[in-house]
Amino acid sequence: MRVIGIDPGLRRMGWGIVDVDGQKTRHVANGVCTSAGGDLAVRLCDLHRQLTEVVARYAPETAAVEHTFVNKDAAGTLKLGQARGIALLVPAQAGLVVAEYAPNAVKKVVVGVGHAEKQQVEHMVRMQMPGIDIAGPDAADALAIALCHAHHAQFAGKLDAALARAAGA
Amino acid sequence: MRVIGIDPGLRRMGWGIVDVDGQKTRHVANGVCTSAGGDLAVRLCDLHRQLTEVVARYAPETAAVEHTFVNKDAAGTLKLGQARGIALLVPAQAGLVVAEYAPNAVKKVVVGVGHAEKQQVEHMVRMQMPGIDIAGPDAADALAIALCHAHHAQFAGKLDAALARAAGA
Repeated sequence: MRVIGIDPGLRRMGWGIVDVDGQKTRHVANGVCTSAGGDLAVRLCDLHRQLTEVVARYAPETAAVEHTFVNKDAAGTLKLGQARGIALLVPAQAGLVVAEYAPNAVKKVVVGVGHAEKQQVEHMVRMQMPGIDIAGPDAADALAIALCHAHHAQFAGKLDAALARAAGA
Repeated sequence: MRVIGIDPGLRRMGWGIVDVDGQKTRHVANGVCTSAGGDLAVRLCDLHRQLTEVVARYAPETAAVEHTFVNKDAAGTLKLGQARGIALLVPAQAGLVVAEYAPNAVKKVVVGVGHAEKQQVEHMVRMQMPGIDIAGPDAADALAIALCHAHHAQFAGKLDAALARAAGA
């Protein structure tokens, strides 16, 4: 199963793609879509185009986006929301189901605790997929979201299998 | 000049289109894009598709979106931001410049005061374009945004003309 994780942001939108096969996790690619200053609508359009290219190129089968509304102020939350709208839209337009995870849930899965620092998250991502190049903290977060989703999907798969066995018994 | 005004919302996204020719304003169409409950990504995808159809059908030349981040709480602001991301993206994807107006600026242009009630806005929209059917309060707001943008564009046009005359004199 190929998973894309997305860490939404207006200035920098991180993305990370991993392949998951049973217990094995393989890094596919990661990067950051960027939009410089200027007209907000044009920036959203740029992010949409870049992220659409990523989805078309790597063809993930499922997507996960970080769910956060913690921000300094209402203006910051609105900006984040606008970028998040694009992050959710692009995989949905490609027909993917989009899961959402709270930052603490992602950290809990990847690091083991919900209040981990950014550096710890990146460290654990590197531990799980040694030797990879990471395009910055936003891409590291995106890979962590992908790993979190892969973990949940695996667990859901195991649960389904267990239920099927129980039903068959 | 054909103007589309958009009043962003996740549940109901109002749109209104007017033609402006000098002092004359003609109503073209108005309506509401809706997304019912369910998966957030799917809802944003639905809104994107509906609004893209509106833009393709009526081919506006310029767009305006209400700029508001006043909301009850951070979760509500994030939701609004996500819908707003779509409202800004769709006209930008069609190559339109997207203007943004604060609600008070819209009210000030359409009603004459910045703190007008919703009913007053709808009343003044009906006064300026008598006999039109309006698809609800969100569509009325969207028409008000379009009128506000038309007014500003006219003013900018007059200013340009005055500057050109001054430069020629």
